Amino acid sequence: MSKAKAAAAVSLEPLAVGIDIGGTGTKFGIVDRNGNVLFSSQMSTKKHKQVETFIDELHVHLTELIDKVGGSGRIRGLGVGAPNGNYYTGTIEYAPNLPWKGIVPLAKLIQDKFQLPTILTNDANAAAIGEMMYGAAKGMKDFIMITLGTGVGSGIVANGHLILGCDGFAGELGHTIIIPDGRLHSGTGKHGSLESYASATGVMLTAIEILSKTKRKSLLRDIPKEEIDSKKVYEAAIKGDVVAKEIFDFTGKILGLALANFVMFSSPEAIVLFGGLTKAGDLILNPTREHMEANLIQVFQNKVKILISHLKESDAAILGASALVWEMNT
Amino acid sequence: MSKAKAAAAVSLEPLAVGIDIGGTGTKFGIVDRNGNVLFSSQMSTKKHKQVETFIDELHVHLTELIDKVGGSGRIRGLGVGAPNGNYYTGTIEYAPNLPWKGIVPLAKLIQDKFQLPTILTNDANAAAIGEMMYGAAKGMKDFIMITLGTGVGSGIVANGHLILGCDGFAGELGHTIIIPDGRLHSGTGKHGSLESYASATGVMLTAIEILSKTKRKSLLRDIPKEEIDSKKVYEAAIKGDVVAKEIFDFTGKILGLALANFVMFSSPEAIVLFGGLTKAGDLILNPTREHMEANLIQVFQNKVKILISHLKESDAAILGASALVWEMNT
Repeated sequence: MSKAKAAAAVSLEPLAVGIDIGGTGTKFGIVDRNGNVLFSSQMSTKKHKQVETFIDELHVHLTELIDKVGGSGRIRGLGVGAPNGNYYTGTIEYAPNLPWKGIVPLAKLIQDKFQLPTILTNDANAAAIGEMMYGAAKGMKDFIMITLGTGVGSGIVANGHLILGCDGFAGELGHTIIIPDGRLHSGTGKHGSLESYASATGVMLTAIEILSKTKRKSLLRDIPKEEIDSKKVYEAAIKGDVVAKEIFDFTGKILGLALANFVMFSSPEAIVLFGGLTKAGDLILNPTREHMEANLIQVFQNKVKILISHLKESDAAILGASALVWEMNT
Repeated sequence: MSKAKAAAAVSLEPLAVGIDIGGTGTKFGIVDRNGNVLFSSQMSTKKHKQVETFIDELHVHLTELIDKVGGSGRIRGLGVGAPNGNYYTGTIEYAPNLPWKGIVPLAKLIQDKFQLPTILTNDANAAAIGEMMYGAAKGMKDFIMITLGTGVGSGIVANGHLILGCDGFAGELGHTIIIPDGRLHSGTGKHGSLESYASATGVMLTAIEILSKTKRKSLLRDIPKEEIDSKKVYEAAIKGDVVAKEIFDFTGKILGLALANFVMFSSPEAIVLFGGLTKAGDLILNPTREHMEANLIQVFQNKVKILISHLKESDAAILGASALVWEMNT
């Protein structure tokens, strides 16, 4: 390499890779320190019954992106967000929504394949770090991030740091029991967890329950039951559909009660919500806020902000995962 | 002062005052750095409708003790634990169980009276610090302290530090809603909080409910209803009283469910229980543990220790409050 070329290489700012592994698909991208996603792509998680073939395919796709920014010499490390990902051990343990069962040493497998430092945490923790560095929680030291997607995830930041717990598994707020002896969660076998109501499946089940309870007219009756999601409920609600509105009211009642309990745990400045359900805006936020306030004792009332993540949805997961790399080095 | 006397005074190790303010009574004492309570006493909280007369009486009693150890020059500071006490602001805010309403600048009032540095936090946070320095949680970085007394208090330690939240009010786990639309808490007006079941009043109300539901024989029928407490229920249970056992089973079911939710929040190494209810030993611990495990998702099962505080009850509150003083100076 000529001296001029070497100087140019040295002056290039380091980059981070962010990988967000979901039950259905995996998103990944290359991110600079300011939170700009330079290149990104995605692939299927679901089709890989073996984690090894998953990592082989990830390596092929990511190497293409890494080559575009000048090769792996510029990459500071890989940050990975995944359900049940453990920051301390680098393993995924018993993730009900992933195809790989038991304990998977994911960070080590990725690190060995890419020969780059790799750090893992659960997807919602990664999202929380992303919000703190680039998003709605910028500058906050105490907040809770709740992701309302296929499942309900959470990342809790207290005094400026993620709460990881003694074993790295803290922050499984989607599995807290809000309605004792309530709805069965088929993945965990538990009854009445927040996730069984406030996830995509939860909203669908609520719709089916409310539709079957009465014979009231509803636009939702024209949709095959298993295709009902919060987007379709939203579309019906803004057309004045009373049943659709009731679905959001019911979901907001449970979510609000859950949020009240979380507030009385860690007294956050804000709760940041992210995911499909938040697209319903005030239709879900108003009942959520109302029931949160109704269940808070006086000392917490009218203090806690409920914010919607304003990160671009396609980037947010990648940003959050990549942010782990900068955290790791500071 | 002679040179010899001055040298002797300098060599005396510094001491801390611990003050634990409860709804009924206030305990206070002088504690050395190793957790030995050198002198202690108590007085009524309840009879003081004005916080000023409370502090006047406290000053009289405490000055006697301070004089016994050689005067206020040896006192590093005063640590105060009180319901709804706020570490950041030094105020007690809207404490339902105290005679003083609204916002009371307690730390400032005490500091002005004694002319010594004063630090305040809520009673359960103080107890948690005490357990971490001298008790069952010694050496732990992640644990939750639950006090089961007149009320249900909590102090949460994560990564070696108290979770105080954005405003200093974190850790009000007694007020989290465990049974939506459940039993009314007369102090807060909320329904179904942990405190409405697992406090002294809660156990009494459960006893009354179970006794009135059936005509089954029970030793508890010989006791005036309002005098039923966990001690009397325990005494009946060890004599084989089936109703008494059912009271603990019911209370343990609710407490266990609550603990499961707390575990899924902060993933503690242990939960330390303190207070009257814990005297019932396995009668309350077994159902609590069983229902905690039953509500935990797999990743948390069979990990979390439930420990009983082994600090001497009369000292524990004072120790915890005094420990704040050493925390303040390190």
